[in-house]
Amino acid sequence: MKLKCYSLGDVDTRSSAADATGVRPRMNRLYQTSTMAALLDAVYDGETTLDELLMHGNFGLGTFNALDGEMIVNDSVIHQFRADGQAGRVPGDLKTPFACVTFFNPEKEYMIDTARDKEGFEAIVDQLVNNPNLFAAVRFTGMFERVETRTVFCQCRPYPPMLDVVARQPTMQLGASTGTMLGFRTPGYMQGVNVAGYHLHFLTEDGRRGGHLTDYAVLKGRLEVGVISDVEIQLPRTEQFARANLSPENIHEAIRVAEGG
Amino acid sequence: MKLKCYSLGDVDTRSSAADATGVRPRMNRLYQTSTMAALLDAVYDGETTLDELLMHGNFGLGTFNALDGEMIVNDSVIHQFRADGQAGRVPGDLKTPFACVTFFNPEKEYMIDTARDKEGFEAIVDQLVNNPNLFAAVRFTGMFERVETRTVFCQCRPYPPMLDVVARQPTMQLGASTGTMLGFRTPGYMQGVNVAGYHLHFLTEDGRRGGHLTDYAVLKGRLEVGVISDVEIQLPRTEQFARANLSPENIHEAIRVAEGG
Repeated sequence: MKLKCYSLGDVDTRSSAADATGVRPRMNRLYQTSTMAALLDAVYDGETTLDELLMHGNFGLGTFNALDGEMIVNDSVIHQFRADGQAGRVPGDLKTPFACVTFFNPEKEYMIDTARDKEGFEAIVDQLVNNPNLFAAVRFTGMFERVETRTVFCQCRPYPPMLDVVARQPTMQLGASTGTMLGFRTPGYMQGVNVAGYHLHFLTEDGRRGGHLTDYAVLKGRLEVGVISDVEIQLPRTEQFARANLSPENIHEAIRVAEGG
Repeated sequence: MKLKCYSLGDVDTRSSAADATGVRPRMNRLYQTSTMAALLDAVYDGETTLDELLMHGNFGLGTFNALDGEMIVNDSVIHQFRADGQAGRVPGDLKTPFACVTFFNPEKEYMIDTARDKEGFEAIVDQLVNNPNLFAAVRFTGMFERVETRTVFCQCRPYPPMLDVVARQPTMQLGASTGTMLGFRTPGYMQGVNVAGYHLHFLTEDGRRGGHLTDYAVLKGRLEVGVISDVEIQLPRTEQFARANLSPENIHEAIRVAEGG
């Protein structure tokens, strides 16, 4: 496959003089709170507020305390898609048990003008990044042939494991749609800490519908990619996290079922 | 086991206003360059200089480009122990392919006054931290009944895998010694990214000898522990790193052989 690639210039993420709490945020630096394995083991309550999260990035995805819906952060706006279809105002003191954000600075841009399914789309991004051992931030804005999403329900204590939760969540067929999908590609060796491979959420153009993408085909639109080599992981100092089993034997299969398409 | 524990007060690592590049460094925040799996796969050249490393911490361990010896950082001084026994001046523009540092702020202190072997020592630290899912920075200063270290030789290109290198490195029996051992405890789910379990280096009191600790027994001295919940990983943007296999099937066994005691 040959790509027409518009390079937007190399970004030296090392030269930034300050981090997210300073004056000059570092671009394309991944910040994540907690780990995917902790979420799988029902650590659904975190300490990080949404206000805090936005100090570390203007772009990303995650979920909310009590697993209350899917989070998508685009251009510094946090959207919450709850299972009941409500997408209301999101207060800044709301907390998250797992989220990944970055200050998105697309280094590469590519116009897609022929239909691509999930595999075809991922192959384009892989070729643009050309390095399986780094992370990437990915955004596609445009038309979709079909979109299939899932949104998790708010859970009550005692929390069930995530695989039990996901087994009960219906997927939604949005059909032909216009909107934005965004998220991250994570290298394989970070499985468990994050979701190895692609983890993307979707948001319709009017901002009214969205969720965790389980399947899709894109038709036409703009793909933007930022390569990430700097990762910050903030682990919770909660009792729940301390007690969690973060190295289960079935971690690959569990993440595939919980987050895969 | 009951511990006499002197708490030095809780440190809120979240409240720091700046990171290592700012005025107020965050204490007990782990910074690591590259990954252990990359080192295993012979990625022996990195881009991070020692001057840069000291901006992220005053305490830690690692190695040098071309795998040229063992690094120990104590109170902002970087020591290099080369296989030939030389421990000369270390220029700030020297680079490292793998290193872990923190601004060490011991939250817990414990006086050891009876002999403890490796397992006994680790059990004390585990009890002080009381959370298997967080990292810890560990320093013991005092008398040792025995110390066994290893120091890697500088390698020439094309680089052999680390298991081949380690198989050829002799261990050194230092016997009864006075000095400092320091390093990190890494949670199990970070195996490959770092070294799961304990990774400690040793430095004699006179600063003349030292290396990677493979076995030891402590006699008497001061143990200091800092709990780490904030981790920054800076991945290299080199060709070598891009091509490395960072998820080999035998990762647990390989790290045990390469870094274990």
